[in-house]
Amino acid sequence: MKLPIVQSYAGFAMALAIAFMTVHTKATTTDLINEQQKANAQALMEKALKSDLAYEIVESLTTEIGPRLAGSEAEKRARDWGVKLGKELGFDRVSVEEFTMPYWVRGELKVALSAPYAQELYATALGGSGASTNNIDAPIVYFRNLDEIAYVKSGDLAGKVAFIDGDLMVPSQTGAGYGPSNQKRRVGWQHAERGGALALMIRSVGSNSQRFPHTGMMSALEDKWASIPVVALSNPDADQLRRLYKLGEPLKVSIASTAQWKGDVSSGNVILDLIGSERPEEIVLIAGHLDSWDEATGALDDGAGIGITVAAAKLIAELPTRPKRTIRVVMFGAEEVGLLGAFAYAKKHADNLHNHVLATESDFGARTIWRLVSNVNPDANATIDAIGKILEPLGIVRGGSDVPGGGPDIIPMARAGVPTIRLEQNGMDYFDYHHTPDDTLDKIIPEELKQNVAAYAVTAYLAADATADFRPEAKTRSEED
Amino acid sequence: MKLPIVQSYAGFAMALAIAFMTVHTKATTTDLINEQQKANAQALMEKALKSDLAYEIVESLTTEIGPRLAGSEAEKRARDWGVKLGKELGFDRVSVEEFTMPYWVRGELKVALSAPYAQELYATALGGSGASTNNIDAPIVYFRNLDEIAYVKSGDLAGKVAFIDGDLMVPSQTGAGYGPSNQKRRVGWQHAERGGALALMIRSVGSNSQRFPHTGMMSALEDKWASIPVVALSNPDADQLRRLYKLGEPLKVSIASTAQWKGDVSSGNVILDLIGSERPEEIVLIAGHLDSWDEATGALDDGAGIGITVAAAKLIAELPTRPKRTIRVVMFGAEEVGLLGAFAYAKKHADNLHNHVLATESDFGARTIWRLVSNVNPDANATIDAIGKILEPLGIVRGGSDVPGGGPDIIPMARAGVPTIRLEQNGMDYFDYHHTPDDTLDKIIPEELKQNVAAYAVTAYLAADATADFRPEAKTRSEED
Ligand SMILES: [Zn+2]
Ligand SMILES: [Zn+2]
Repeated sequence: MKLPIVQSYAGFAMALAIAFMTVHTKATTTDLINEQQKANAQALMEKALKSDLAYEIVESLTTEIGPRLAGSEAEKRARDWGVKLGKELGFDRVSVEEFTMPYWVRGELKVALSAPYAQELYATALGGSGASTNNIDAPIVYFRNLDEIAYVKSGDLAGKVAFIDGDLMVPSQTGAGYGPSNQKRRVGWQHAERGGALALMIRSVGSNSQRFPHTGMMSALEDKWASIPVVALSNPDADQLRRLYKLGEPLKVSIASTAQWKGDVSSGNVILDLIGSERPEEIVLIAGHLDSWDEATGALDDGAGIGITVAAAKLIAELPTRPKRTIRVVMFGAEEVGLLGAFAYAKKHADNLHNHVLATESDFGARTIWRLVSNVNPDANATIDAIGKILEPLGIVRGGSDVPGGGPDIIPMARAGVPTIRLEQNGMDYFDYHHTPDDTLDKIIPEELKQNVAAYAVTAYLAADATADFRPEAKTRSEED
Repeated sequence: MKLPIVQSYAGFAMALAIAFMTVHTKATTTDLINEQQKANAQALMEKALKSDLAYEIVESLTTEIGPRLAGSEAEKRARDWGVKLGKELGFDRVSVEEFTMPYWVRGELKVALSAPYAQELYATALGGSGASTNNIDAPIVYFRNLDEIAYVKSGDLAGKVAFIDGDLMVPSQTGAGYGPSNQKRRVGWQHAERGGALALMIRSVGSNSQRFPHTGMMSALEDKWASIPVVALSNPDADQLRRLYKLGEPLKVSIASTAQWKGDVSSGNVILDLIGSERPEEIVLIAGHLDSWDEATGALDDGAGIGITVAAAKLIAELPTRPKRTIRVVMFGAEEVGLLGAFAYAKKHADNLHNHVLATESDFGARTIWRLVSNVNPDANATIDAIGKILEPLGIVRGGSDVPGGGPDIIPMARAGVPTIRLEQNGMDYFDYHHTPDDTLDKIIPEELKQNVAAYAVTAYLAADATADFRPEAKTRSEED
């Protein structure tokens, strides 16, 4: 059955209405998870908290493959590594689904203050940035924030380099400060180009006060990417520019960048399945992404997600019997450059998305999980609540049952109506490392990673073995059975 | 009077012997610091804890001058800045003492793993490093630590690049882990060159797990510097190499460096005096150094020392009367490249070092001071103890009275017998930033900097106004009076 977006939303709204009538009786039932399932969950938790497997997986990926830019030869090696890993760990089915994507490379970048004195500025090209056709050495025009540059008119910035300052991102457990801080990275270039600027510099989006700027993809505008160099300056360098600007110094900057688009290349998703024992066609999908930015080995983003989900599934595979539903681990390709693997997956599996009972991605680092949120058929909220109860000893609280999104790569599926949950990692320091050269293995705390595996293993197992159906159309479908 | 080293040590030993007899009676006197001095100290402390002056000075130096490599045009601008600042703040005498020094520049450096796969390694040239004559692309020979490479024989490393690993420096309040960790930076190159290596890489000396390697000067061997490139790898990169080595992977690295010596140039010390009201020829010297490494703006090392000492002296200058002795603030040049300013000062003032009653330098960052140590004429220990008592409300404890050294730039003076004290900053995170691109203004905590100024102001004022004489030959001299 195809599951068009409109229909699924309608189904969701109907289910929600029913939920208001039924939730109180449902929530009090205690047999949503039976004794055998509880015992298995307990065993998984205990085993996970002693297992080094997730760490070994991240260590292997980051050490033996290294940085894994979407579309690169290294990402291809990572797929081969993923296939080999899946087979070695005894998954029932291991496959690769390739897709084509446009390939952007960073090239070389040099940014330096040239007036009032010479000083190297620590900068990184944003994904999709253009090259400098001639080396740039030009006055800087300072903008306090993205709002300020939005007023720029055509030609206002001719012969100049724009700099968009802004406030240091506020760190928090949820990472809520990232979205607002990130806007200047996404669309700043559109204003700079309209103004005729030679290049754009922005204050780094991250929360760190190290001199590592935060990279990340820009947003295309009607399929058009920036033609000028667009770079992020580390926060201490942005502070320095701000102070110099406030002193009234005339500022000049030189920029040389060889960033470029290299045409179409292959990427792919790696899929590892544990086939369900009773309803193999129904899928509980847990995911991470295989690609990383090129400046680091992507231990937190998203080697950790790969390690956590693969290790969780492997622990489930060691149970005496497979859970009723299929557990699918997806190692998405090309997440960083626009969720390309996720869109490819949703497209390829469009006819089967209605069989995706639940989906989630671990893509927020490796600190302890503190909250479980969900967006499933309200009839099944009681089962998610019951899972939440079992997770409590891990220090995890039950959050909202109306929180859409299960991670970046789940977005295309969720748009098509696939139910989602999310096990939220503590993001307090995530944006100190995320998308910087500093996202390396040493940033993972092995004991905290184990807690992640425990939570994923328990959750995936119970969701796959539960009687409840999480899908919006579950009511209708069970009536059809 | 000239103060040759042998004589001063003899005098010191004699004074020490006398101290054993007299210390108990001396220590109980309470009039070592009189009521007026106590009131002035209290006023200085209160004023310092409210003053932004030190921060403003560091901000000005790091923002308006930027990085200040020893011997560079930027260091010259820093001297001009220091002179202007001294005059603006109303010091009684402002002077510059120039000296000649050999000038080393870092140039450009690219280090990348070339097998088993390509990955950029975050590296920095060590001070005194040679250039790569041809670009290097060669196998890596792994050494667990400095001890291991010490066994290398002539020709053992021909055509290879040596890598000296080692343990991550242990951070501590005192910074005690730095010396041992630093040995491989100092002398590692001598073993690599003996073995005929094309280049040497060492694990970064610092305690940070950011991908910023720690730079710093190597030690010359009989006036000879390294002829090969010698670079430090950031700790995460060194971790990566270690893991790959343990996997048994054949490792290759490419290195291109344009580091070079550029011949003799000028540097200089800036001297700001508050002339003493009763014994102007006697000097209490407080210092910082004006130069910084070139990769950062040197806020902690040693913009902070400049800010703290200048602000402390300025607060003392605002008292109704000058203290009895001269307070001299020295902004040393070329500290990082071998204490060149300090040696030049000791040489130029050799005939007057006997008038240096006490000397100290702030060159250990800007975290709160937690301990006062000293090495003065034991007869004067009671006065240092009394100063320590007055510093107690700042959270400062009295440490040893037999701790030589008053900071790096004080070494040449101390060798010539000048008494020293040191106000020790908490160094727990100092080597996370020290000698890395990350030594920037944002690392300074303004409130902690104020505590430093309070401690320096009180100590310098009381030492300059005290009756006690801290010099080893004080006993003899007072008998001569
Ligand atoms: Zn990610
Ligand atoms: Zn220093």
